[in-house]
Order: sequence, then structure tokens, then C-alpha cells
Amino acid sequence: MYIPTYEDMLAAHDRVRPHIRQTPVRSSDFLNELTGAQLFFKCENFQEPGAFKVRGAANAVFGLSDEQARRGVATHSSGNHASCLSYAAMLRGIPCNVVMPRTAPQAKKDTVRRYGGVITECEPSTSSREATFAKVQEATGGDFVHPYNDPRVIAGQGTCAREFMEQTGGLDMVVAPIGGGGMISGTCLTLSRLAPETQVIAAEPEQADDAYRSFKAGHIIADDAPKTIADGLLVPLKDLTWHFVKTHVSEIYTASDAEIVTAMKLIWKHLRVVMEPSSAVPLATVLKNPGAFRGKRVGIIITGGNVDLDKLPWIQGV
Amino acid sequence: MYIPTYEDMLAAHDRVRPHIRQTPVRSSDFLNELTGAQLFFKCENFQEPGAFKVRGAANAVFGLSDEQARRGVATHSSGNHASCLSYAAMLRGIPCNVVMPRTAPQAKKDTVRRYGGVITECEPSTSSREATFAKVQEATGGDFVHPYNDPRVIAGQGTCAREFMEQTGGLDMVVAPIGGGGMISGTCLTLSRLAPETQVIAAEPEQADDAYRSFKAGHIIADDAPKTIADGLLVPLKDLTWHFVKTHVSEIYTASDAEIVTAMKLIWKHLRVVMEPSSAVPLATVLKNPGAFRGKRVGIIITGGNVDLDKLPWIQGV
Repeated sequence: MYIPTYEDMLAAHDRVRPHIRQTPVRSSDFLNELTGAQLFFKCENFQEPGAFKVRGAANAVFGLSDEQARRGVATHSSGNHASCLSYAAMLRGIPCNVVMPRTAPQAKKDTVRRYGGVITECEPSTSSREATFAKVQEATGGDFVHPYNDPRVIAGQGTCAREFMEQTGGLDMVVAPIGGGGMISGTCLTLSRLAPETQVIAAEPEQADDAYRSFKAGHIIADDAPKTIADGLLVPLKDLTWHFVKTHVSEIYTASDAEIVTAMKLIWKHLRVVMEPSSAVPLATVLKNPGAFRGKRVGIIITGGNVDLDKLPWIQGV
Repeated sequence: MYIPTYEDMLAAHDRVRPHIRQTPVRSSDFLNELTGAQLFFKCENFQEPGAFKVRGAANAVFGLSDEQARRGVATHSSGNHASCLSYAAMLRGIPCNVVMPRTAPQAKKDTVRRYGGVITECEPSTSSREATFAKVQEATGGDFVHPYNDPRVIAGQGTCAREFMEQTGGLDMVVAPIGGGGMISGTCLTLSRLAPETQVIAAEPEQADDAYRSFKAGHIIADDAPKTIADGLLVPLKDLTWHFVKTHVSEIYTASDAEIVTAMKLIWKHLRVVMEPSSAVPLATVLKNPGAFRGKRVGIIITGGNVDLDKLPWIQGV
């Protein structure tokens, strides 16, 4: 297991900078008053393909040798990694094959296809996903870019925290959603060197709280098919992300689906940005644990903005 | 009639800078490909009270003498000017009275009250609005800050175009929605001096096209109670804004309510910002008149983001 380093993150930043956006940081007096904290929201939903995952994907795609690149890339993903890898592959002009649960939101499938990604559907469970992927990869020979358990991906995601610290001039804590742990791991990688006094806090849906239980138990616990509205956070930790979680994460907080929807609507209303339920988990946990955040400078990563606008969770109980 | 000058705009910028945000400029490869133009969106919906009108309101409020300020301010508005004037008055700690149509969106009324504004409701027509306002102003003695036909307000709105040109490094044209004409007038004021080669184009709902008809006829035509989904654009031109429209505007384009909703959803999906129907009229007119914009650097002002999230126009035909 190769653990990516701070220098890998710096190299990733140089590699991906021409292909990604330096996303803006937003704040809201209303949300600051509501929480008693000074909240800074890093809008990774404003990346062209709509999620931070373009950072890790671009780092993997643009790091391939020409010979590797000709065979393209392949992955499995609940959505945003698939879109972002397809997007990065399109920018380099190479093929991209993705295995995706048939239950993934239509908006995410549409985005993958718009960027030229070829989708093979699987059942919405980790086991089906991995079995289907093995077949696809054998058939295509594409370089496997895991959605998070890949040092290239983690180093790429770490570039976000570097920008975030530069843009805000320092933070007491950074809160990001945790699914497989790619963004959290990249954040730990960067901040443990750049700002070791800044706490890294993970936010997870109660209904897919395997990372929380892993953190408390001291070893990886994986669920096969959790169900939550935060559809970007269904996957379990793997060895590489577990390394960063157990070494550098200060705390993992959880929130219910109802609390996630409440936080999502607050962000749409007061920050006026369109983001997906997974990205609302950090604010939901801040609202639920006010004492942990009051008076602090808190960075929140809005991880993605690919949501089905025809099915908003606060309208007619969809 | 005092016509505000470029120097008034510069003074306004110095006055309001501590109280407003320099809003980011967003773009989308998808929307650029769709239109064949290079589109730059200035996100005035990201102002704390959710609209560009905080610029003109803050210029008026912070320009008052202490003696005037004690009596507060008063206005009539279909919504965003009311919120923004209340917000600016709250920042200075002075009273704000607003007359508002009873049909204005609940979200806009809530925002006014959150900022301490006192609402008196009127019928949704220009005549009822003006009659009700006369009574309120007599009772309170507040300084009348007209939503657009006020040199202080126009000078304040003009600060947006100044930032926009600095942020983009130059534009071939700027497209903004037109209701009463405050933003368009401020844009004309600034660009006629700062970038006289940049065209100013107004975008108007077909169902409230009084500015378009005025522009073609050569004199102000006012409708009493137009109805369109673009609820921020219901009011007519007045002498001061008509001066700028007839002198500096290159063209006025119109779009139907259905076209406005289509453009609104495209912006939510691809720019991932929450904005109100009025702010979608510029993109609707760009999509409708592609030949006028293809190959150009086009600035679009997203004027406001106060929308009722429970009643989105593309869901169940609300």
C-alpha cells in the first residue's frame, strides 16, 4: 500500500490546475448567526462536472503515460467520480468505462454520457458493483481509477484543502462528508502538514454510518447496501482511506436523513447554491452539535451539485 | 431631474464597498457550447440579502445625514429592493418602512421582516402601490428611496458593471433584465464612460414588455398590472431610467414565460446557482436570438436569488 505524500499533493496541484476551477468560498451572515460559528463554504459543486472528484480524476488521467492512456480508464462509482473521470478522460481524449448502480440518479447518468463515458449498470450493492467491474475491466483493459482508494485520487482531492486554506487565511476545523473517504483523506494529507492545528472532522449519514462505527471500533466495518438520501456516501472505507481516517480525523458526526434535508434547504436558500444531499451532511452535523463549533472558524466542503431538479426532497415528500 | 454621473458611481462604490460583497463571476462550458457565446454570469444573487439592489440601497442609506437617518427610509417595491433597503437600514441601525404587493412571494416578505423592515401591503398594481405609499410616507417621515428612479440608487447599481469589467477583463456586451430599469441605467452610466464599445442589452418578459414598447415608440409606455413569472420585473420605466434606456441601450429583447423557465432550469442545473425567474430572462433572450450573441464575450447579470423553494416553476406546473 503506497500512502500518498504532501509532495504528491503538490505535484497533483500542478498537474490538475489547467483542468479544474479554483472554486469560490461563500459565506452567509444568516447561517453564521444560526450556528454561532463563522462558516466558510468551499463550492466544489461549481467544478464544471459538478464535484470535487474532478481533482482526483484529473490527477489520475493526466498522470498516465501515453501508452497507458491509449487503453483509457475504467471505474465504478455511485455517480460523481464517474462523471468526473469521464470529464477528465474527455479532456485528454481517451476512453472511459464506468460501472454504476442502476438506481443512481438519472442526472448523474446523463452527465457521464454527456462526457462520453460508457456506462455498464450493476445492482446497488458493493458486491454486485465489484463483480460487474471485474468483467468490464477485463474486456476493456482500461486503467482502474478507484473512486477513492487510490493514492493518485487522494493526492488530487488534497488540492482542495490547500486552496481552501489560502482563500480563508486559516481555519480551526474543516468538515467534509465521508463515504469512501477520498475527500477526507486528501484533506488529512494536506492539513496534517500545511496546518496541523486545523482539525479534520467527517460528517456521515446515520443511515450509512459505517465510517463512524469503524472509527469507534478501530477497524473497518463495511455495510453492503446502506440506504440514505445522501446517495454519494454509500460506499465503505478501504485500507488507504482508513489509514488517514484513523490517523488524522478528530471526530466523525452523523445526521439523520431529515436533518440532512433541512440543512440542504438552508444552504439552497441562504447560500443560493444548488448542491446534492451528500453535501449537506456537514451543515446538518454542525446544527446538531452546536457546542463543538460555536465561536470557531469552520470550513465546510460542498462536495457536489449533481441533483435531480425534478425531485427535490422537500417537495411532496419525494 | 438630476442625472447621476460616473463620479457619483465612483463615490457610491467607495461608500458601499464595506457593506456589500464583490460577487463572483461564474461560467459553464455547457452553456457556452449551447449558445456559441462565451458567457460570464455575475452572481448578484450571492449578495447577503440576495440581490444587486443592496448596492443602490446601501448607497442611499449610507449617504444620509445623521439627522435624515434618524427618520429612517421608506419605499415601495415588488420585493428585492424592499429586502435590500431593509438590510442596509439594519446595518446602519435606522428604521425602514416598505409598501409591498400582497401577492409578492412569501420568501421576499420573510426576508424583509428578518431585516427589521415594516411591511404595509397594497394591491398588485402600480396605482395602488403609489397611493398606499403616500400614506405610509406621510405617517413615518422616512426618506423616500425609490426602487430605481433615484440617482443614488442608479449610481449604486452602476458599481456592479465596474466590478464585472474588472473581473472579466472586458466584454462585448452586458445583458441585464429590465423592469423599472435601475440596473440597466446603472450599467449604462458606468459602461458609457468605462467601456463605451461594450453594448448594453436589456432583457424583458414578453408579458411585461412595456420597456420594449417604450424603446420602439420613443416614449415611456406604462402598464398598470402586468403578469409574468418574472415577478421582479413588473414595474414601468420612469423619467430617469428612461433617460439611460433611450440614450445608451443598444437593444431590448423579450422572452416568453416558458422560455424564462427553461433558461432558469438550465442555470440551476449547469451553473448550480439558485436564482429567481427574473434573473433568467437574459439567458432566455440569448437562447432565442443566438445570432446576436454567437462568438461574443457576453456578460449576464444574475440579479437576484430570492425564490420560493417550495414552488419551483418546473415542478407540477406551479
